[in-house]
Amino acid sequence: MEKIRISVIGANGYTGMELLRLLAGHPAAEVRHVVSRSLSGQPVAEYFPSLHAYDGKVFEGPDDLQALAEDSDAAFLCLPHAASAEMAGRLFRLGVKVIDLSADFRYVNVETYERTYGVTHPEKELLRAAVYGLPEINREQIKTAGIVGNPGCYTTCSILTLYPLVKEGLVDPDTLIIDAKSGVSGAGKKADLPNLFAEVNENFKAYGVTTHRHTSEIEEKLSLALGRPLQLSFTPHLLPLQRGILATIYADLRPGAEGRIAAVYRNYYEKEPFVRVFEEGRLPELKHVRHSNYLHIGYKVDERLNKVILIGCLDNLVKGASGQAVQNLNLMFGLDERTGLMAEGDYL
Amino acid sequence: MEKIRISVIGANGYTGMELLRLLAGHPAAEVRHVVSRSLSGQPVAEYFPSLHAYDGKVFEGPDDLQALAEDSDAAFLCLPHAASAEMAGRLFRLGVKVIDLSADFRYVNVETYERTYGVTHPEKELLRAAVYGLPEINREQIKTAGIVGNPGCYTTCSILTLYPLVKEGLVDPDTLIIDAKSGVSGAGKKADLPNLFAEVNENFKAYGVTTHRHTSEIEEKLSLALGRPLQLSFTPHLLPLQRGILATIYADLRPGAEGRIAAVYRNYYEKEPFVRVFEEGRLPELKHVRHSNYLHIGYKVDERLNKVILIGCLDNLVKGASGQAVQNLNLMFGLDERTGLMAEGDYL
Amino acid sequence: MEKIRISVIGANGYTGMELLRLLAGHPAAEVRHVVSRSLSGQPVAEYFPSLHAYDGKVFEGPDDLQALAEDSDAAFLCLPHAASAEMAGRLFRLGVKVIDLSADFRYVNVETYERTYGVTHPEKELLRAAVYGLPEINREQIKTAGIVGNPGCYTTCSILTLYPLVKEGLVDPDTLIIDAKSGVSGAGKKADLPNLFAEVNENFKAYGVTTHRHTSEIEEKLSLALGRPLQLSFTPHLLPLQRGILATIYADLRPGAEGRIAAVYRNYYEKEPFVRVFEEGRLPELKHVRHSNYLHIGYKVDERLNKVILIGCLDNLVKGASGQAVQNLNLMFGLDERTGLMAEGDYL
Amino acid sequence: MEKIRISVIGANGYTGMELLRLLAGHPAAEVRHVVSRSLSGQPVAEYFPSLHAYDGKVFEGPDDLQALAEDSDAAFLCLPHAASAEMAGRLFRLGVKVIDLSADFRYVNVETYERTYGVTHPEKELLRAAVYGLPEINREQIKTAGIVGNPGCYTTCSILTLYPLVKEGLVDPDTLIIDAKSGVSGAGKKADLPNLFAEVNENFKAYGVTTHRHTSEIEEKLSLALGRPLQLSFTPHLLPLQRGILATIYADLRPGAEGRIAAVYRNYYEKEPFVRVFEEGRLPELKHVRHSNYLHIGYKVDERLNKVILIGCLDNLVKGASGQAVQNLNLMFGLDERTGLMAEGDYL
Repeated sequence: MEKIRISVIGANGYTGMELLRLLAGHPAAEVRHVVSRSLSGQPVAEYFPSLHAYDGKVFEGPDDLQALAEDSDAAFLCLPHAASAEMAGRLFRLGVKVIDLSADFRYVNVETYERTYGVTHPEKELLRAAVYGLPEINREQIKTAGIVGNPGCYTTCSILTLYPLVKEGLVDPDTLIIDAKSGVSGAGKKADLPNLFAEVNENFKAYGVTTHRHTSEIEEKLSLALGRPLQLSFTPHLLPLQRGILATIYADLRPGAEGRIAAVYRNYYEKEPFVRVFEEGRLPELKHVRHSNYLHIGYKVDERLNKVILIGCLDNLVKGASGQAVQNLNLMFGLDERTGLMAEGDYL
Repeated sequence: MEKIRISVIGANGYTGMELLRLLAGHPAAEVRHVVSRSLSGQPVAEYFPSLHAYDGKVFEGPDDLQALAEDSDAAFLCLPHAASAEMAGRLFRLGVKVIDLSADFRYVNVETYERTYGVTHPEKELLRAAVYGLPEINREQIKTAGIVGNPGCYTTCSILTLYPLVKEGLVDPDTLIIDAKSGVSGAGKKADLPNLFAEVNENFKAYGVTTHRHTSEIEEKLSLALGRPLQLSFTPHLLPLQRGILATIYADLRPGAEGRIAAVYRNYYEKEPFVRVFEEGRLPELKHVRHSNYLHIGYKVDERLNKVILIGCLDNLVKGASGQAVQNLNLMFGLDERTGLMAEGDYL
Repeated sequence: MEKIRISVIGANGYTGMELLRLLAGHPAAEVRHVVSRSLSGQPVAEYFPSLHAYDGKVFEGPDDLQALAEDSDAAFLCLPHAASAEMAGRLFRLGVKVIDLSADFRYVNVETYERTYGVTHPEKELLRAAVYGLPEINREQIKTAGIVGNPGCYTTCSILTLYPLVKEGLVDPDTLIIDAKSGVSGAGKKADLPNLFAEVNENFKAYGVTTHRHTSEIEEKLSLALGRPLQLSFTPHLLPLQRGILATIYADLRPGAEGRIAAVYRNYYEKEPFVRVFEEGRLPELKHVRHSNYLHIGYKVDERLNKVILIGCLDNLVKGASGQAVQNLNLMFGLDERTGLMAEGDYL
Repeated sequence: MEKIRISVIGANGYTGMELLRLLAGHPAAEVRHVVSRSLSGQPVAEYFPSLHAYDGKVFEGPDDLQALAEDSDAAFLCLPHAASAEMAGRLFRLGVKVIDLSADFRYVNVETYERTYGVTHPEKELLRAAVYGLPEINREQIKTAGIVGNPGCYTTCSILTLYPLVKEGLVDPDTLIIDAKSGVSGAGKKADLPNLFAEVNENFKAYGVTTHRHTSEIEEKLSLALGRPLQLSFTPHLLPLQRGILATIYADLRPGAEGRIAAVYRNYYEKEPFVRVFEEGRLPELKHVRHSNYLHIGYKVDERLNKVILIGCLDNLVKGASGQAVQNLNLMFGLDERTGLMAEGDYL
């Protein structure tokens, strides 16, 4: 079988590294080009000594896109917002399928995107060719998409945990509160003072309260599920650990909903390869999904307050970014969705 | 000046150790007896090598309470629930002032206590002599109390952050959601599998969802502030760090409340030595209160949703336990409330 | 192709879990029995929620060894010392190939074993059938072994880092000092006070100074390489992290040795699939080998003192235990040694 | 009593912050000026929210040294090497006593300094007025010094642990190997990629092997003790934790030395307020000295190899920097050496 020829563009950060790690174990993909302007010329295995499979591979600059496109069936983009859309446009027009890990192709409503990210979208027409890459919701469209907008980490966790209950009307959509906590790799590989070990270690804090960009992404997708606009409260926090997001979600239950939660989840997710819903009262823990592509969901009904507390967790670099991107790749190229993604979580 | 003669009973755990640490630097207190049945006979500075001031001191068993009482003006109790009330009763009747760090003297309503802790209170009459030891609310009663029920860690953080807004009617008391996160020392020094380093490190999880005992303590105190019973949602989580609690609290704002928050907080806490309320939008971080007796409060109004997000944080072993206990001691013995408690937080 | 039928005995601890994790991704092995006396009857995926591949699998007690042996080509033993040798004997006589992760089959000299572990070896005759499972040294013997004594974690790291230099006479074998540091998973899943998160976190300490059991294992193997007995200094320390061992090793250089180190290492390890030796002065870091089966070696010559400082590091649960055990399995069953072990390290 | 008027120059980093923390609790010192060019104009308590005592205080630029000097009895300098000596010279000539936390006044031999730090010393004459600020060795000279060169963190730990044994000839001075491990705060508050949480957490590595600058400082001081030049091996490592240094030191014992170690240590350190030597075989742990000014020393004789393994540990920001600086201040101003430094270690 011929392998899918892959280019990873913007491979110097943590999502790029995670893509390289996952693709090294993917039996049907071959990484042809590892692109990073700032690391151009440096051996990959020297910069990432954990990536033994890339011996002999060297970071390339994004100089000759034409040549790169001729040698690539698919490209993963790990670039800053807006820059990513430009690169996506160029590669798409050169015949390469694009999986974009920035926010540029995540929104149906480009105005929401532009307001949220404070930029003008440079490739508005391409949005019609783009699909939001959440396989559990958009599987069929992803299969034929030319561009996939890979979802955000907080958003994958929040949307998938809430989606069945919102869509089936089990919860009052005007009462949603998402209290989310993320490991530090979500902040990327940036040399900023607040990301120093001595600043983050033994610390915990909220950030972006009422203003975090993922709020509008979650709201758009759940509004589409609901059939009308909804607004919700989203508060992210920074955990002193490497990987993982856990979202604790509060919602008022609709009358009669209490007994239907398990069945609705089962209906939506029983056959999903990467979603596990626990029986009521059994709660997920971050460590059980680390380094895996799984989303674990637990819940508990609070009868006293007529609320349900949902807990979703995933690895922000895998199901929340690079693993989901590979899942999308598999769908776009007709492979079993699970290919290269079945490594177990690490626990330790 | 003669020093207050102190006994610390149940000194083998983390709150006991923290009391010893704080009392070592207290200019008006002298620790006469360090009591632990299981460590009886062992040198204190051998078991806690960080406590250099206890050279020559040895753990005693609780054998001769009469003698201990004659040599003690005050006793701190770090014992299990119910056992603590029994010991408190014996010492109180021997003329010792008691600061009890268990839940036994925290509740006005003994039925709530018994339902929450699943025990029969062994010293019901003593409850009348007991005061809930939250100085910011009960300062005057604490000064003359014979027994002080030292508040829980989650509860101190949650109650003090919410109290002014609930009492002044700025928030709808039927919409309160407390999403709290605590460091591991809150679980005490118990050799249980879930508390192992390899289990907790790089992990995060919720626990006690809808069932945590501190819920009823918070509800009772805020109900008293409100003047009618209220119920709220409280969800604790376990952080992979030593010390500290951060509570993110969601509440719907009452009409017109938005502009009054700063003034109400100022009114209640401006003169409080250990409470700092930040200007709107400036958010507290756990590291700034570690090892100190301070509570930091921040908040942000979400105009879109007409909610306020409050963030309170403190060190669970200091303001959430042993530091507050010393603050109560100071009040009970007519000292400046801040005595021995002014060490700055550590940041690192 | 028929798969190798596997039993994992004593699967409740960290090395057992790691074996299950690795074997889940092994294309030529099938785990038939997951044995743990204490967890008998419990679903594996409930106890280890990260092991999704074990859905439907249940821990078994070690009740019917006859039946287990008939259904197993190979067994991994993760049992306490001495108990392991007994089980190995029974399974070996029932025709099962045994990979023993205890110390019972690591020593050539049974007296050293008995003195080191303070027990009488219960299966002395079997020692002749056993091979020390360090593929880089004993590859050919492992291929035909009926029992493999899987090396210890500290020992794998120390021996492999020193072996070429000792064997080729580049260092003075009477000057070896090994200062080793290990993550907490090396202590196993035991509910002891010193292993609590609050005790280990933000702490660092040496332990077992001059008395650690791995000393005699390292000495025996390096003595065999040298051709005469050698003694060395070995000091282990406990790192506040999950996985990984890094050993800093000091040795006096023999005259003329300085310029030969790179060539000697190359000679021994260039073709080794899981050993990487860096050029002089480039130093390995723990994070680059985490969750992988690799050993990274770096070194620096101190011309001033005529010493070489060697640094070896590996993941104690993979190359230091379960990964090496799978590597041995592959050799014993004629597979490519790398099968199921090529997952890249995690870095984060 | 009039308080000592203090200026802290270069107060934006971790040692500056630690000085402010300690001085806030010092009964005989008053911080008059908190100087930082980059933070000039910013409220101290806003930049360091843990420093509640600095309410109302604002960082100043180093603009009017004349005025600052008139208002200061002593200045602590936390500046880069060479810049520090220049500032020290200016303040010294304006009549201010200087405690310099850089390396500029640590060396007797200025050539060693210049070779080690790669700079020309800008104030060579002042070296005669300077004393190396290790009270346990230079107490009397410090009392009358105008400038104190505050020792490095690794060096304080290494020198004090070795000093009595080297001076009394118990160990062979040509066999010393120091394997040291430090928490991250030792690297300072610099926004470099290798200091990011995601890079340091769950990692461990050696650095500066054979080239670390503290080597020459340790060698000079121990050579002075020995009466002839000695050379030693020093290898630092980076621990994933906030504070603390633990040094494991290997030395060959001189004939007959074994039985004399305890007595020699007792002789040197019994009356030292901040040094504790444990009985043989009892080993210190980092957590017991965190946030305190103590050095803990333990040791174990290896009779088999005729070596002694020494373990010293301290808090790099306290006894290894700012605490020792305050100890020097106390000596320079005729105070009890322990003033403001008796806070117990934190353990948690």
